Amino acid sequence: MITTASTIPVEVGENYLEAFAKLSCTNVNVMHIRNREDAQKPDYIQRIKEADAVMFSGGNQMRLTATFGGTEIYRTLQTRYKNEEGFLIAGTSAGAMAMSNTMIYEGNAANAHLKGAVKVTTGLAFMGDVIFDSHFDKRGRFGRLAQAVATNPTCIGIGLGEDTGLLITEGNKMEAIGSGMIIIIDGHNIGYCNIADIADNSPISVENLTVHFWRKETDTCWKQENT
Amino acid sequence: MITTASTIPVEVGENYLEAFAKLSCTNVNVMHIRNREDAQKPDYIQRIKEADAVMFSGGNQMRLTATFGGTEIYRTLQTRYKNEEGFLIAGTSAGAMAMSNTMIYEGNAANAHLKGAVKVTTGLAFMGDVIFDSHFDKRGRFGRLAQAVATNPTCIGIGLGEDTGLLITEGNKMEAIGSGMIIIIDGHNIGYCNIADIADNSPISVENLTVHFWRKETDTCWKQENT
Repeated sequence: MITTASTIPVEVGENYLEAFAKLSCTNVNVMHIRNREDAQKPDYIQRIKEADAVMFSGGNQMRLTATFGGTEIYRTLQTRYKNEEGFLIAGTSAGAMAMSNTMIYEGNAANAHLKGAVKVTTGLAFMGDVIFDSHFDKRGRFGRLAQAVATNPTCIGIGLGEDTGLLITEGNKMEAIGSGMIIIIDGHNIGYCNIADIADNSPISVENLTVHFWRKETDTCWKQENT
Repeated sequence: MITTASTIPVEVGENYLEAFAKLSCTNVNVMHIRNREDAQKPDYIQRIKEADAVMFSGGNQMRLTATFGGTEIYRTLQTRYKNEEGFLIAGTSAGAMAMSNTMIYEGNAANAHLKGAVKVTTGLAFMGDVIFDSHFDKRGRFGRLAQAVATNPTCIGIGLGEDTGLLITEGNKMEAIGSGMIIIIDGHNIGYCNIADIADNSPISVENLTVHFWRKETDTCWKQENT
């Protein structure tokens, strides 16, 4: 359990140890990696090399990219994820948002229809050609994910509702799990789109977004084709 | 020659035909793809499948991602670039900036030291783990490229000066060409960095960026290792 995204890592770590204990998972430990210096410590690197699964807590997703970007821990996670069939990487909230190649780090629902109100940067890129967003329905994040997709429709937008996850296997097979919704925003068929031509803070106009709502077991799994 | 990024495509196209003619390149044609509808036209798709080289003009880089993202033209370019040894993709100004996986689309030099003043989105990703910037020294863009690197040091920042290019072969071997400078900003050794923890519009603080200046023939070529 990696608590780097959180500003209250000890509390978060304890909560997860309790939660995993309820699931009878007892071989669980917490890594309080606070900064890039911590990320270089051989003990942490070794544990990342040996763990069966790694989970990122919530908090601030940019703490994950700014702390782990270009580090040996990051390279190890990428290599193991690509090459070891049983190795699992999980994340919740900020920990889920950091998983895609393109990562939203800011954007209020109230002005997400205005160009430039949604801020993104490079994510940890465990999955390519997608943008994950979390707390999707509760926090009204359709507009910000749609804006991020419109800037480059190569990326599929994937919004995660509360108590809902996406199980990704074989790199690009996706299946909804949990009690809520997954929303997919596919921009491949976008026709008219003004986002490149308008000034910042002007309202965007986008034609023909394709949107899917998924929930557990009501849909078959879906494969994101690499572009 | 693809003029999509420009708002004066006819003029730009004519300039390039003249420039290439001076170099005795006469089998050159211009594609004025203005929007996503144009990008679906079979004639353009066929020409992209048959061209020996494709060059993107300057203009607005987001017009490139918003127009080509998720299209068959884009998939064709990616597939050909990955699989055909002699196939060349070139770009200048906006056309160069769109080549990296992470693409800066806005950021004034005057406030590039403030968090959030540099705006990026998903680029065309012909090269991974890099961020290209152009007009680098003339427009004082060190700050904005450094900020983009600090958010995720997995990406190397590459700034292109005027009349200067980067020749990339075998996917990641880089060599400076032309009369000016290439600047490399490598964040792998960043120590302290406050970018994830401060509010928008606050000044960023980043320790230990590694910076290289290159020019033609004074440096051997450099290979960007995949992370």
